[in-house]
Amino acid sequence: MDTDHMIKIIEIKKSVFADNELDAEALRKELKAKGVYLLNLMSSPGSGKTTTLIRTINLLKDKLRIAVMEADIDSDVDAIKIREATGIQSIQLHTGGMCHLDAEMTRQGIDGLAMEGLDLVILENVGNLVCPAEFDTGAVRNAMILSVPEGHDKPLKYPLMFSVCDLVVVNKIDVLPYFDFDMEKCKEYVHMRNPKAQVIPICAKTGEGVEEFARWIEEEVKNWKNQ
Amino acid sequence: MDTDHMIKIIEIKKSVFADNELDAEALRKELKAKGVYLLNLMSSPGSGKTTTLIRTINLLKDKLRIAVMEADIDSDVDAIKIREATGIQSIQLHTGGMCHLDAEMTRQGIDGLAMEGLDLVILENVGNLVCPAEFDTGAVRNAMILSVPEGHDKPLKYPLMFSVCDLVVVNKIDVLPYFDFDMEKCKEYVHMRNPKAQVIPICAKTGEGVEEFARWIEEEVKNWKNQ
Repeated sequence: MDTDHMIKIIEIKKSVFADNELDAEALRKELKAKGVYLLNLMSSPGSGKTTTLIRTINLLKDKLRIAVMEADIDSDVDAIKIREATGIQSIQLHTGGMCHLDAEMTRQGIDGLAMEGLDLVILENVGNLVCPAEFDTGAVRNAMILSVPEGHDKPLKYPLMFSVCDLVVVNKIDVLPYFDFDMEKCKEYVHMRNPKAQVIPICAKTGEGVEEFARWIEEEVKNWKNQ
Repeated sequence: MDTDHMIKIIEIKKSVFADNELDAEALRKELKAKGVYLLNLMSSPGSGKTTTLIRTINLLKDKLRIAVMEADIDSDVDAIKIREATGIQSIQLHTGGMCHLDAEMTRQGIDGLAMEGLDLVILENVGNLVCPAEFDTGAVRNAMILSVPEGHDKPLKYPLMFSVCDLVVVNKIDVLPYFDFDMEKCKEYVHMRNPKAQVIPICAKTGEGVEEFARWIEEEVKNWKNQ
């Protein structure tokens, strides 16, 4: 049997809800009642979201029951990669050209998951630093990955994205010697947008720093469950 | 006098036109009548659009009269960089959170340029592989920059962007040894989306390959002027 055919693909329909804020609040409550923490992970195309998730999930999967929803305009390569590399439940959401997910679209994904016993669902949002930042997905937290080759000036250019994220993971630090990326300036610019945001430098390829990201997630889920 | 204050910034307003296709066609005709070629340059955030433009413009500025419109949600760092490094006319378009430019928004930028004697206007679109692909800006051609760190699989994930581009510039080839980027696969995937698209590998940092991009632009403008 071809592995490709074992990945569940959900074709996301456009939302009919007028008030996304209300809808996101409702989804957050539903998930809270089920004890499932939703993390919304955003980034540019090619920042390394999938590789980072694989590393992180492999560190966490014995402590938390995790599922991943991979949102993409097309293709299902990411969902397959995640499932093959971690063994966890992974589904693909096709946005059909839409550049972001809102709460109703996220719910369509949630409805496609086997939720029984889950602690954590990670939504890998569409690779885009603009539109996804505008829509509350119903997640407990927003996090983003900025990769070294993109440059440390991104918080200046994409203010909303950096304002709505509680955590900025800076990926691909192994290539720092080959790029003009200033980590201190990056942190300064991130904090201009959100003074409370945490910055965690990692290299998803080698695994450096990934424990800290995994720890952040673990603490987040634990504190939220105890609230 | 502070250089920052010398950059013209245009706050782009939302379009009121219902039919962008028609509007784009009209803008294309207006520009044709003025003998000004408009190139729409798109990419992800941090792919190196500005650095590439600086190199390319410095190769072309004695042959063509060029102006640049830098579209960004916020900040004017790119317009300043371009003007300082090339001396050409460079203005900043602020999209105020909007994730793309359509023809009417592009026209607002054009209206802010001194058009007298210009041969070429380059629009550096918002860094985003999704939304800008959906809107005809009135340009003669769409081109895009894909950078090596983003990965060769991007045409699979952002099909529309690669379908609408006549040229894909692959930037940052100096870091090819540090990334799993397969140039042949990249070309294959690009051609899946648009069989006629040209692929030009470059390194904007060192200048490698940039002559070919400059030549492509020069030929394009020449052929279009002779049409």
